Amino acid sequence: MSTKMNFKIHILGSGSALPTIKRFATAQIFTAYEEPYLIDCGEGTQIQMRRFRIKFGKIKNIFISHLHGDHYFGIFGLLSSYNLLGRTSQLNIFAHKELESLLKSEFSPIIIEELNFKVNFHQLPENETVIFENKRITVKSFPLKHRIKTCGFLFTEKPRQPNIIKEKIQELNLTVPQILDVKAGKDLEIDGILHKNSDLTTPLPALRSYAFCSDTAYSENIIPIIKDVDLLYHEATFSESDASNAEKTFHSTASDAGKIAKQANAKQLVIAHFSSRYPQVDFLLKEAQEHFPNTFVGFDGMEIEM
Amino acid sequence: MSTKMNFKIHILGSGSALPTIKRFATAQIFTAYEEPYLIDCGEGTQIQMRRFRIKFGKIKNIFISHLHGDHYFGIFGLLSSYNLLGRTSQLNIFAHKELESLLKSEFSPIIIEELNFKVNFHQLPENETVIFENKRITVKSFPLKHRIKTCGFLFTEKPRQPNIIKEKIQELNLTVPQILDVKAGKDLEIDGILHKNSDLTTPLPALRSYAFCSDTAYSENIIPIIKDVDLLYHEATFSESDASNAEKTFHSTASDAGKIAKQANAKQLVIAHFSSRYPQVDFLLKEAQEHFPNTFVGFDGMEIEM
Repeated sequence: MSTKMNFKIHILGSGSALPTIKRFATAQIFTAYEEPYLIDCGEGTQIQMRRFRIKFGKIKNIFISHLHGDHYFGIFGLLSSYNLLGRTSQLNIFAHKELESLLKSEFSPIIIEELNFKVNFHQLPENETVIFENKRITVKSFPLKHRIKTCGFLFTEKPRQPNIIKEKIQELNLTVPQILDVKAGKDLEIDGILHKNSDLTTPLPALRSYAFCSDTAYSENIIPIIKDVDLLYHEATFSESDASNAEKTFHSTASDAGKIAKQANAKQLVIAHFSSRYPQVDFLLKEAQEHFPNTFVGFDGMEIEM
Repeated sequence: MSTKMNFKIHILGSGSALPTIKRFATAQIFTAYEEPYLIDCGEGTQIQMRRFRIKFGKIKNIFISHLHGDHYFGIFGLLSSYNLLGRTSQLNIFAHKELESLLKSEFSPIIIEELNFKVNFHQLPENETVIFENKRITVKSFPLKHRIKTCGFLFTEKPRQPNIIKEKIQELNLTVPQILDVKAGKDLEIDGILHKNSDLTTPLPALRSYAFCSDTAYSENIIPIIKDVDLLYHEATFSESDASNAEKTFHSTASDAGKIAKQANAKQLVIAHFSSRYPQVDFLLKEAQEHFPNTFVGFDGMEIEM
């Protein structure tokens, strides 16, 4: 896949509520066709973006899964830095209503009205809903199962126009209107002969998708939504031996993550948001892999192409 | 000086408004007699405390110079982590009123009332005032010259009790009440002979002091307040060649910092809070040293003993 058609994530923070030097609080850059989208924005996100050389001025859309501090405390510094760097282009923030209320309140850490750029707030809905789309992707939010309102996000590539087989253009002496018809998916009838669209074009690669699920207890409700996803990011805060903690705090164990990936028929699973109690997480990987072998351990700086 | 009597700073963040990987936003640990005090709390302070192995559970007092984000956006994550780590002991925050209002507002990022520990807010006064004292130190706040209300802090060691020369105890057969009198600074009259306190005790080392001055334009008003300080931390956001920016933003140049250190007769000067426009700061050091040779460049992780 060429760079221009890239579809990937770059993990900025793979830690949980207590950030460590190695694992900052949750934040990721999802990139589709060279456009970066920020998912969650824990404390230090702007520093991680510098560390991993993300062109963060290019971000137009920020998705915040929920309002626990380790998923959004970096937004204040990021907005502040955008302002200092002279940003003028609008910024969309998709989040629960309370973030807008905070940022518009009298005592907000950032005075939204004084920024040199406009911030558009988009409230996350309660049910599975497409919340964003452009030429390249759609983004769907869906409810996770956590202590407070929390959303997962599904990023799905939109159908691309097919490429016409060059030889066919010459062979059939196609006109520009005919070419546009073929690109739009139509068959062509020329001199009484039907040329099927699939005979005129190269097959399109399958549409790619990425699902972000943090933070959540084990929830089979999400399986139909993320079905057949290319890459599933699923939190794995706890080990099986700490399953009671997972239950109490509405988080998942690594094996929960593996089970969800398996049932959703995901192609790959990446786990993170590990409790800071675990200095090493190899055993969490093993627990997930018992259910879903194609699992990887997320780390700060990790990039995964789809 | 033994560890128990230490008097030092540990710089956690030496950057300015735009944090970089190498220079986090402003934060320092000042330690006196093994007790740590946090000065400013920019984004990522809790991560830097982990990086530099600060026992941050021991901090009882936090001093916030002013409410620009790069000096306090880390407070939300820090309070949140204290709570998760099970802190129960009270925490004092010395800051401008607006931080208390923010943290007590309906939309605060941290619900102060729900924390497992009590936070006591202490409003910084407008004028030079002692705002804190305990057995070991006093802390004075004083106004700096910045775009918003900003305070510097002067940490001064309290007089210690002198040590009695051991031989004198035996020689003069001193009683416990007499010993306590000597430690309290009194002379003794024994059998009609006056023993001066200075003859009975070992001389005390001079009292140490540390002045923290960030952010501020050049201001000679602070000179009498920080006179003869052992260590002066003074911001040096800009180079002489960017003096117009310094003026416009109420920051200092490196030579401003050097001039203040010289006039205040400081023993040492450490400069930091460098604009992110300077990848190297050697020339800032030279500019300061033209006025005050005993200048050092601050960096994240730097420790200076007094």
